[in-house]
Amino acid sequence: MSTTSAPLPASVPATMTAITIGAFGGPEVLTPGERPTPAPGPGEILVKVEAAGVNRPDVMQRKGLYPPPPGASDVPGLEIAGTVVALGPQTSRYKLGDKVCALVAGGGYAQYCTAQEAITLPVPEGLSMAEAAALPETVFTVWNNIFERGHLAAGEWLLVHGGTSGIGTTAIQMAKAFGAHVAVTAGSDDKCAACIRLGADLAVNYREKDFVAEVKSATGGKGANVILDMIGGPYIQKNYEAAAVDGRIVQIAFQKGAKAEVDFMRVMMKRLVHTGSTLRARPLAEKAALAEGIMQKVWPLISEGRLRPVMDQSFPLAEAARAHERMEASTHIGKIVLTVS
Amino acid sequence: MSTTSAPLPASVPATMTAITIGAFGGPEVLTPGERPTPAPGPGEILVKVEAAGVNRPDVMQRKGLYPPPPGASDVPGLEIAGTVVALGPQTSRYKLGDKVCALVAGGGYAQYCTAQEAITLPVPEGLSMAEAAALPETVFTVWNNIFERGHLAAGEWLLVHGGTSGIGTTAIQMAKAFGAHVAVTAGSDDKCAACIRLGADLAVNYREKDFVAEVKSATGGKGANVILDMIGGPYIQKNYEAAAVDGRIVQIAFQKGAKAEVDFMRVMMKRLVHTGSTLRARPLAEKAALAEGIMQKVWPLISEGRLRPVMDQSFPLAEAARAHERMEASTHIGKIVLTVS
Repeated sequence: MSTTSAPLPASVPATMTAITIGAFGGPEVLTPGERPTPAPGPGEILVKVEAAGVNRPDVMQRKGLYPPPPGASDVPGLEIAGTVVALGPQTSRYKLGDKVCALVAGGGYAQYCTAQEAITLPVPEGLSMAEAAALPETVFTVWNNIFERGHLAAGEWLLVHGGTSGIGTTAIQMAKAFGAHVAVTAGSDDKCAACIRLGADLAVNYREKDFVAEVKSATGGKGANVILDMIGGPYIQKNYEAAAVDGRIVQIAFQKGAKAEVDFMRVMMKRLVHTGSTLRARPLAEKAALAEGIMQKVWPLISEGRLRPVMDQSFPLAEAARAHERMEASTHIGKIVLTVS
Repeated sequence: MSTTSAPLPASVPATMTAITIGAFGGPEVLTPGERPTPAPGPGEILVKVEAAGVNRPDVMQRKGLYPPPPGASDVPGLEIAGTVVALGPQTSRYKLGDKVCALVAGGGYAQYCTAQEAITLPVPEGLSMAEAAALPETVFTVWNNIFERGHLAAGEWLLVHGGTSGIGTTAIQMAKAFGAHVAVTAGSDDKCAACIRLGADLAVNYREKDFVAEVKSATGGKGANVILDMIGGPYIQKNYEAAAVDGRIVQIAFQKGAKAEVDFMRVMMKRLVHTGSTLRARPLAEKAALAEGIMQKVWPLISEGRLRPVMDQSFPLAEAARAHERMEASTHIGKIVLTVS
């Protein structure tokens, strides 16, 4: 939250439609309401939202399990794409009318949203606004956790759980573009086939096969060099088993819980690194450094046609509840977004 | 084990006294016996042992819980100091009569022991042979795990469990010499006082106080940046609590077991790194690189008087059983060594 904000230009209405969480609960608690249009503070731009990505943390926030960090909007939504309609003090990067996509600390499910310009990126040529809105969360997460934190190198094996999620589909494309081999787990043969089409070298239907044995077999007994895990619970021990000597396991969520009874012997004997991170609460400077790395290393992949967000389905803003229902049904492949008119 | 060995010089007897493990069990299974004197293979030197360090893994090996790696001697003993009495093929570093200390893959509890010259170091000026024999295991372990793996930096806080162990006393001195703050845990007020005298900034008697609260308090609520742990079990969760944001926890043993029920949420939220390593089974090239780093960065600290092994007690080789009894009583402060005449 800014101390000094720029006044809104006359072209921007004082109030806007935003999705609010009436009370914590199921998808039905997400309803459109009226909110004051936010004014951009220092370093911020105001974006007229054209599309907003839907992410698991939004579902957690709706349930009351993931409160927004201090100062952030209580309106859900962590990524947007749209048009710059106002510039706050101390901004320099954009002019009115520019098309941007942005990682935001909240407030994305709305007609207008402020964004720190340091963590915005230009909408890549040839992508729709819905596609652009589907990029920030997954690209920041994959870049930071698999490449910066996990140090995935060309020739190494990456294992990603949830291969058809937004993060999974992005991770497959990015890892292949950087010369790594990719194994994924997914919950159906259809999902596995989608991962293989995207470039995965191995896709394991975890309902039918043991991913540890499959990954070991595909890697000549060595195991995966980097594992990106958002499952946790019983997967933690299995990840230690599936990892190669000197393997890095990066935890970005705990869909099956953060508690587990684990034998740590393999962490020592195989010199594993078990780490993890969250994106939302990181200081702006860290996110800005990430954005810079992404602009240099990842954005070119998009213009070269080697990375494109896999889109599941778009819903109008007012139907955010349906978007959450779809995410929770876990039958989607790729990103779910809200479009704002 | 070498394929081509140099013949032993006439001055070296064909057989020697070595401590053998008759059957796995208590200290009493360690008895002196006669063994063929080993011949140095390619890259190896033969050392007439003057002192051999006693380490926890020797105790584990005696109990049958830590088998020597393939090709290593079944005689216990992982570090020695002595005189070079024979040179194997493809050696270049030493001449007969040089005084060396060495990390060895086994066989240290004996009158003669072969060593890869790449993982030997010259006996530092001014140190006794017993002191020199007390260096390799702890210095290699501390350097590798705290500095290379844990990236301890000047101004950061290190937490070491078992502050009066050989590793603990070495870690205190090395971390202080490199400008870090040091917290330790130990099992008595006497041991805590010994750690403070060695330079520790905080020593917590874990039988009386909660080390998590003490470390948090000493660090202004931030926690330790690097934790070296050989305890495991219930300490794993506590380490996650005592660690600072971006903290590194390095596991080098599991004296209280490798299994634990753990909540991994802090690993993700604080972006911790939980890792670990063992020294003995590492490829020679990795140990040689370690030895080089130690020669450059750690050996100078000894000549400057900033690092000196803390010696507990010496026992004659034939009384190896008493040395193990003392280690298992856990009342020692510093290193236990065997002297060989």
